[in-house]
Amino acid sequence: MTVTTPKGFRASGVAAGLKSDGAPDVALVVNDGPDATVAGVFTANRVKAAPVMWSQQVLKGGVVRAVVLNSGGANACTGTQGFRDTHATAEHTATVLRGGAKPLLVGPGDIAVCSTGLIGELLPMDKLLPGVNAAAKALDADGGAAAANAIMTTDTVPKNAVFHGDGWSIGGMAKGAGMLAPALATMLVVLTTDAVAGSESLDTALREATRLSFDRIDADGCMSTNDTVLLLASGASDRQPTQEELTEAVTAVCHDLAQQLIADAEGATKHIAIEVLGAESERDAVEVGRTVARNNLVKTALFGNDPNWGRILAAVGTTQAAFSPDRVDVAVNGVWVCRGGAAAEDRSKVDLAGRDVTITVHLHEGEMAATIWTTDLSHAYVHENSAYSS
Amino acid sequence: MTVTTPKGFRASGVAAGLKSDGAPDVALVVNDGPDATVAGVFTANRVKAAPVMWSQQVLKGGVVRAVVLNSGGANACTGTQGFRDTHATAEHTATVLRGGAKPLLVGPGDIAVCSTGLIGELLPMDKLLPGVNAAAKALDADGGAAAANAIMTTDTVPKNAVFHGDGWSIGGMAKGAGMLAPALATMLVVLTTDAVAGSESLDTALREATRLSFDRIDADGCMSTNDTVLLLASGASDRQPTQEELTEAVTAVCHDLAQQLIADAEGATKHIAIEVLGAESERDAVEVGRTVARNNLVKTALFGNDPNWGRILAAVGTTQAAFSPDRVDVAVNGVWVCRGGAAAEDRSKVDLAGRDVTITVHLHEGEMAATIWTTDLSHAYVHENSAYSS
Repeated sequence: MTVTTPKGFRASGVAAGLKSDGAPDVALVVNDGPDATVAGVFTANRVKAAPVMWSQQVLKGGVVRAVVLNSGGANACTGTQGFRDTHATAEHTATVLRGGAKPLLVGPGDIAVCSTGLIGELLPMDKLLPGVNAAAKALDADGGAAAANAIMTTDTVPKNAVFHGDGWSIGGMAKGAGMLAPALATMLVVLTTDAVAGSESLDTALREATRLSFDRIDADGCMSTNDTVLLLASGASDRQPTQEELTEAVTAVCHDLAQQLIADAEGATKHIAIEVLGAESERDAVEVGRTVARNNLVKTALFGNDPNWGRILAAVGTTQAAFSPDRVDVAVNGVWVCRGGAAAEDRSKVDLAGRDVTITVHLHEGEMAATIWTTDLSHAYVHENSAYSS
Repeated sequence: MTVTTPKGFRASGVAAGLKSDGAPDVALVVNDGPDATVAGVFTANRVKAAPVMWSQQVLKGGVVRAVVLNSGGANACTGTQGFRDTHATAEHTATVLRGGAKPLLVGPGDIAVCSTGLIGELLPMDKLLPGVNAAAKALDADGGAAAANAIMTTDTVPKNAVFHGDGWSIGGMAKGAGMLAPALATMLVVLTTDAVAGSESLDTALREATRLSFDRIDADGCMSTNDTVLLLASGASDRQPTQEELTEAVTAVCHDLAQQLIADAEGATKHIAIEVLGAESERDAVEVGRTVARNNLVKTALFGNDPNWGRILAAVGTTQAAFSPDRVDVAVNGVWVCRGGAAAEDRSKVDLAGRDVTITVHLHEGEMAATIWTTDLSHAYVHENSAYSS
């Protein structure tokens, strides 16, 4: 049920002392092949962490043999020294893997790097590099769960997912608990598959999958400097799914992980689906869903179990989507509290006691639809994010 | 120091029972002339409350003799009945003013209407109309303070401001404590002046003033359905300032009121100025300032007295503004914690104990600058906005 479920992968997670509490903080995922094709999607933030800049370069070669990940420091906004540190981490990882019990013929250009944690501070390389040694020694064909553990930051649970095809599979792990935003988040995701697939085919599958999963969750509208989603293929199953099969499978795993991320978002007490129906275009549906999902007044109302549809309508009114205010319907957990832009069913009928909330906005402009998943804005969110760096 | 400071105006504020706690909730501002020129700026939200749609029509005539305002209900998302209620309010106000102690020759088309409060519920007209009678009876040349009191919702203090010119003056009142967003907010503002000025001249002054004041405050990024700023001129001073003098004076009063609004924003513990320097264009400077001001991670960090400049840089990275990540400098309360996109002065030097916070972002791309004012994201914000309608 992890990144080591597909054949051809080993992984590990160890504690290197980057986290002050002694929790695991360095992970390694190695692709033993025979193939080493890869695809990646990275943050759209123009302020990119050093490991993002590094991994983007590495992926241009179309081959990745290993991913080294650390929590306990984002290595973002760290200038040229930060980039040198990422480079050194890849160099060191390659050296260690070349000299391991099962030597791999790799150079630094085959190693992707991911970091997560506080922005603006240099990584303690004197701890990270020995951690890589330990992680390489710990590599195991059952090491996926340990790796998923080591990349957690404020996550309360590790996130893993798997898809079983006909003789092939996909495994995945993710971390991310806040800053889940469109175009990704402080989110690190590594997906592995033993399918036979070229890098272009992986890229097609991954872009479609992220568009419909990670790009449709939005915890607080903030966008991280470090977001990375990698998909590595070993070809070890000797099975080659069609493009459609591959895309569907990657999408399913990404959707599963995305729902786990939103379920564990910082300080959330509600798991909210904003379902937009009757839109003129998918773009309109996504814009409306995202705008409602980001609205602090809607989010605080839901924290307070208040089906305040007026705030929802006011949020829709700030979009550029095609709609007419006097034709919009809004339901909260299936109760149509607003029809034609005005009050309809009694709001006291709405049951908001549970964790799951569905808000349905019907624009009556066309046939397109989209769902955005988000969380409420709670006291715990404020607490966790006002105390994070101290 | 109120809307009745300029000559030619009377005002009042009374309790009509729209608010359950018995606080004043209906206000009236009357322009006794001789002139009745007017300008107005309204919410950019596409979901507009009935009184906004009404007042926009009224202003097309270029004449407003009175403004009737109520708190205790926004009359937004109330369909055709809501619009009929606004129309009836204007009709009734005109009738009452024609028959008052100092009869005014007015029709409903001379009456602007403003409402504020919960969205989605019809106003209790059986309370509002008698309230208008009482407000008309209470009209007084010293009634400005009472009017400012009656338009409060979650405001903790009334907001008034004044400007004294050479023989003429401007007075203003405002309400608004949350949803302060660009292109205005759940904000009602009435400005009065005894200057002689045509409606076009008033419009020029008001648009420039709001662009530099109300459009540059942003408490939670949300945009109301009811925002209205009205500027009424009586000409009673017989003085005609130049366009420049008028614009400067209106801008000064609007700036004063905007600062009072942000100082009283719902649940705020910090009054934050985001100062953007070195931008290629004013548009870039405003975009960067606004984006930082709206970032929940920046706002929670400041609530926690944490000079987390990494979050500021990550927010800047989501804009379209011209900048290079490795040339941005950031100061918090004068301490340059980030230079060239990386850590600089020790963040422990930053003193965030006080209420006032200045964040300076220098883009080093040009000579343009802008300041956006905002608040932090606190437990009190979550509390107030999760409990508002219940």
